[in-house]
Amino acid sequence: MSRPRPLSGFPEFTPEQRIVEQHVLDRLRETFELHGFASIETRAVEPLDRLAKQGEIDKEVYVVRRLHADERSADELGLHFDLTVPFARYVLENAHALAFPFRRYQIQKVWRGERPQEGRYREFTQADIDIVDTGTLAAHHDVELPLVTLGALERLHVDLGIPPVLMRVNNRRLAQGFYRGLDIDDPAEVLRQVDKIDKIGPDRVVQTLVEQVGLSRAQADACVALAGIASADESFVDAVRALGVRSEELDAGIELLADVVRTAQRYVPGRLVADLKIARGLDYYTGTVYETELVGYEGWGSVSSGGRYESLASDGRTTYPGVGLSIGVTRLLVPLLSRGLIGASRPVPTVVLVAVDSEDARPDSIEVAELLRARGISCEVAPKADKYGKQIRFADRRRIPYVWFPGSGESGEVKDIRTGEQLPADPRRWAPAEEDLRPVVALQP
Amino acid sequence: MSRPRPLSGFPEFTPEQRIVEQHVLDRLRETFELHGFASIETRAVEPLDRLAKQGEIDKEVYVVRRLHADERSADELGLHFDLTVPFARYVLENAHALAFPFRRYQIQKVWRGERPQEGRYREFTQADIDIVDTGTLAAHHDVELPLVTLGALERLHVDLGIPPVLMRVNNRRLAQGFYRGLDIDDPAEVLRQVDKIDKIGPDRVVQTLVEQVGLSRAQADACVALAGIASADESFVDAVRALGVRSEELDAGIELLADVVRTAQRYVPGRLVADLKIARGLDYYTGTVYETELVGYEGWGSVSSGGRYESLASDGRTTYPGVGLSIGVTRLLVPLLSRGLIGASRPVPTVVLVAVDSEDARPDSIEVAELLRARGISCEVAPKADKYGKQIRFADRRRIPYVWFPGSGESGEVKDIRTGEQLPADPRRWAPAEEDLRPVVALQP
Repeated sequence: MSRPRPLSGFPEFTPEQRIVEQHVLDRLRETFELHGFASIETRAVEPLDRLAKQGEIDKEVYVVRRLHADERSADELGLHFDLTVPFARYVLENAHALAFPFRRYQIQKVWRGERPQEGRYREFTQADIDIVDTGTLAAHHDVELPLVTLGALERLHVDLGIPPVLMRVNNRRLAQGFYRGLDIDDPAEVLRQVDKIDKIGPDRVVQTLVEQVGLSRAQADACVALAGIASADESFVDAVRALGVRSEELDAGIELLADVVRTAQRYVPGRLVADLKIARGLDYYTGTVYETELVGYEGWGSVSSGGRYESLASDGRTTYPGVGLSIGVTRLLVPLLSRGLIGASRPVPTVVLVAVDSEDARPDSIEVAELLRARGISCEVAPKADKYGKQIRFADRRRIPYVWFPGSGESGEVKDIRTGEQLPADPRRWAPAEEDLRPVVALQP
Repeated sequence: MSRPRPLSGFPEFTPEQRIVEQHVLDRLRETFELHGFASIETRAVEPLDRLAKQGEIDKEVYVVRRLHADERSADELGLHFDLTVPFARYVLENAHALAFPFRRYQIQKVWRGERPQEGRYREFTQADIDIVDTGTLAAHHDVELPLVTLGALERLHVDLGIPPVLMRVNNRRLAQGFYRGLDIDDPAEVLRQVDKIDKIGPDRVVQTLVEQVGLSRAQADACVALAGIASADESFVDAVRALGVRSEELDAGIELLADVVRTAQRYVPGRLVADLKIARGLDYYTGTVYETELVGYEGWGSVSSGGRYESLASDGRTTYPGVGLSIGVTRLLVPLLSRGLIGASRPVPTVVLVAVDSEDARPDSIEVAELLRARGISCEVAPKADKYGKQIRFADRRRIPYVWFPGSGESGEVKDIRTGEQLPADPRRWAPAEEDLRPVVALQP
């Protein structure tokens, strides 16, 4: 077996990098649970026809079949490419047993057969929250979800040093109501053209709207002006009003978006803006839409996106509307980790290496280790009764902060190998400095 | 989209069942980390040729390919069917960056295309620990691993009410040394026959050893007598000695196994026996072997198995011996969950439902919820400003223990809906009963 090479698009972490990831996932989970979201996991596979329904994405699906299955066996399966399709299926399958509105979070790997490049992976971890109801889903959940997500991302910033984020929010109904107020017949087509504004610039969008979509110059100018509005407070409302367009749907959209901005200003100040050019997922989102960039690393793309679906799932009788936000954990972490921007204080959970005086005395060292573990202190017993200098180097290579030298009976000494300080200690009472108890994750200097 | 049906062999959990699983996984992780094991995760896929090398198992592999890949594309992949093959590959790939002996735990899903039945799944979660070194791996790690695993399983028993376990341990060298001491030429073949003792009984094993393997009746009787020895203490040593066979390898095997039993008696009393008929994984284990049953549910099969590999991996120049134990989390949990033997006190993390007096007053309720969350108390804000009776029923359906009624300013009242007791409370100071802070997992009455 020669040395294997990494598979492009399937990132794997070193133990130290994995500690960073675990810290991130733990904090996401904790935030989601503080907001009453219940965890679910779904199987990795879905029937292929359920995955293939999703328009163009079928190109990227990984098909799964048993090595010795009959050719063209009926039960073809594919790996899920997101957590929304499986969640919709889970809701339908378990609707009788769920209490609605149902709040769930789901942190799992997903797979896409895309061409790998930075920011695009073939296997990656997503952390999704969704709220789904039967019939109708109250509008205030569109306000709630960005608070939860931004709260989670803010903890990553404050606790771990991950860069801060800026979430951009829009409401599909605002744009559609605006277009309808302008007596435009095909709002969806206008939306599609306006979505190109960052790529081709406002002038060419106006040109296309006039020449290809058949808008008047005034209509086209108004549409592009609308897309140019953005604000971190409710001032976007006046800016929209100043364009002089009126419709009921526009009013509804403005009110919803203003509510999001107002609440975010109160609880996650500086982290959310109304940005009226955000379109996202033109085919399925029907109301609020969200996307989120890392401040200073905008080029890495959106690290958290989502929106409202009027019909997340339907069994023909009942429709299940939902609103969801997904954090791209791998997309957030891999660029930071691969550039060495973030790391852990050590690559192991171990706080104390218990030295071994001789192989015959190994049981004494195991005894010390068990006493420390019983008090929540992670230990390893040295693998070999080498000279103490070698055992200290063993700890040092792993950045384990303390080495314990068992004495006779209950006596013993513990050395902080960073300072060299060595003191008598009792494994029933000694505790490390609080900040040494677990590896610390932080931006690297 | 009609109501989908579950896929046989791909178990999924309800939110309540998932809480049980999360409690189990959290405790496994905590125990592994207390013993200094570092977490890694490997990608779900391995090159097919790496998976197919493993003898017969290739029948059960799931092949993965992009939907629109060329027929017979060179880079065929399969889902991993265990965590050992990917770990061996990870060690080879990252050997330059790892410090040996390397201790890792790995908790992930694995996939096998087996015919689904109870105890056999197509997707299931394993929790593995392994210690791997370069060249040689010290024998005391064979003693250490069952302590860690039994410590983890004991926590599941004590904390969550999962039945206790009994681990059966043997050492391949003991049996081989014994056979060699009897001047038997083909110990591997004898081991293969003796392994059938539970299925066909000792008499038929003796018959086969004499008639097919060519042993004398005395040799065959001794082999079967050896397999009949089991003890929870070191008395197995005398029982083996009493059979009158001597060899160096036998002595080495006895000593290793006695060390395991002695240490287990000290730290996990009653949970481990030396059982000299245990064979397991005849093709790859070379020393200590482990298997573990749930006491009272022995028919469910082994919930934790493993052993020592003299060569877990090799790159031609360096050999990496290892010893590992794997806990079958899904195999342990699904029978308990599907029979309703174990459950959680509620299906949501939520401790407090903050009631909403009117939609206009929703910000007051959000404020209370945020104050409680800042102090680690999981909250939801009621989705609708219904009559309070309806909001209480909303909490009751989810077994959320408390409902908060925001008052004017900082006043408010909190009701324990189980007792009906309602008291004034300040969200900056109030705390629930300690046992209500998280869902409690326990055997069901």
